[in-house]
Amino acid sequence: MSKINNLRELFIEELRDLYHAENQLIKALPKMAKASSDASLRAGFEHHLEQTKNHATRLEQIFESLGEKPKGRTCDAMKGLIDEGDEWASQRAESSLRDAGIIVAAQKVEHYEIAGYGSVVSMAQRLGLEDAADLLRQTLDEEAATDETLTEIALGLPLESIAAGVDM
Amino acid sequence: MSKINNLRELFIEELRDLYHAENQLIKALPKMAKASSDASLRAGFEHHLEQTKNHATRLEQIFESLGEKPKGRTCDAMKGLIDEGDEWASQRAESSLRDAGIIVAAQKVEHYEIAGYGSVVSMAQRLGLEDAADLLRQTLDEEAATDETLTEIALGLPLESIAAGVDM
Repeated sequence: MSKINNLRELFIEELRDLYHAENQLIKALPKMAKASSDASLRAGFEHHLEQTKNHATRLEQIFESLGEKPKGRTCDAMKGLIDEGDEWASQRAESSLRDAGIIVAAQKVEHYEIAGYGSVVSMAQRLGLEDAADLLRQTLDEEAATDETLTEIALGLPLESIAAGVDM
Repeated sequence: MSKINNLRELFIEELRDLYHAENQLIKALPKMAKASSDASLRAGFEHHLEQTKNHATRLEQIFESLGEKPKGRTCDAMKGLIDEGDEWASQRAESSLRDAGIIVAAQKVEHYEIAGYGSVVSMAQRLGLEDAADLLRQTLDEEAATDETLTEIALGLPLESIAAGVDM
């Protein structure tokens, strides 16, 4: 981590963390979509992929407005969260159960982003960067909505009907 | 990851993940408290340490009620989140700025847990484990309240007054 001297630098550091997270997610979401059995889950991931590309573009716009190069900062935590999704995507489990596991992992990713975007919205406001705050708030709202959609899809999965010890 | 055959096994796997997370947090929170300059932040982490010990105990109770040994499952993502907090705790930054960085990291930890506990509450309900669902919901509420407290404390930090390039 670079040495941070003021709120603006903290803001930029956190934007870089989120930029890296979004780019990792752009690579991971197609795999998660492909591994999903439930049609609404697959469609949800495909829709969120388009949103995620837009989130990365918004971050690029903000970097540009700040006169900073769009640059990611490797985030091991996010890598761990995405690996967990990958691990689920390749599980030889009953399909609804695999869907449920993918959803658990995806919701952790969404919450990582909800925490991160919550912080940068607040920092942008304190720095008087209203346009940046507006863009970041749009992304925050979309991440929160995605989390809610995932909860609804999970509730609709026929998990109770899976017998103990079913082998796939 | 072990092979998962049904919802009960998925539930237990996720409880193990959270149990490991809580135990990692029990070790990390005293360091985060010690590194905090703001008195309410330090007190907040100390209070949350007591809550976290109780969260671990609740998980042990649930493992026992299910006839399962309390056992953690190493979670790389949570390790990454805690490392980020550690990194902030040892940053040679202006003290309020370091507090702000620690809060960003701590809120990601809280959101990890909010996502995880949200999932297990829902699974416990579907499995008809009402007592477990109640215990897990209490923890979920405490994690969400901690996240809100951290937001309030961050808003009160005198971050705007830190001049650019101040060296500590």
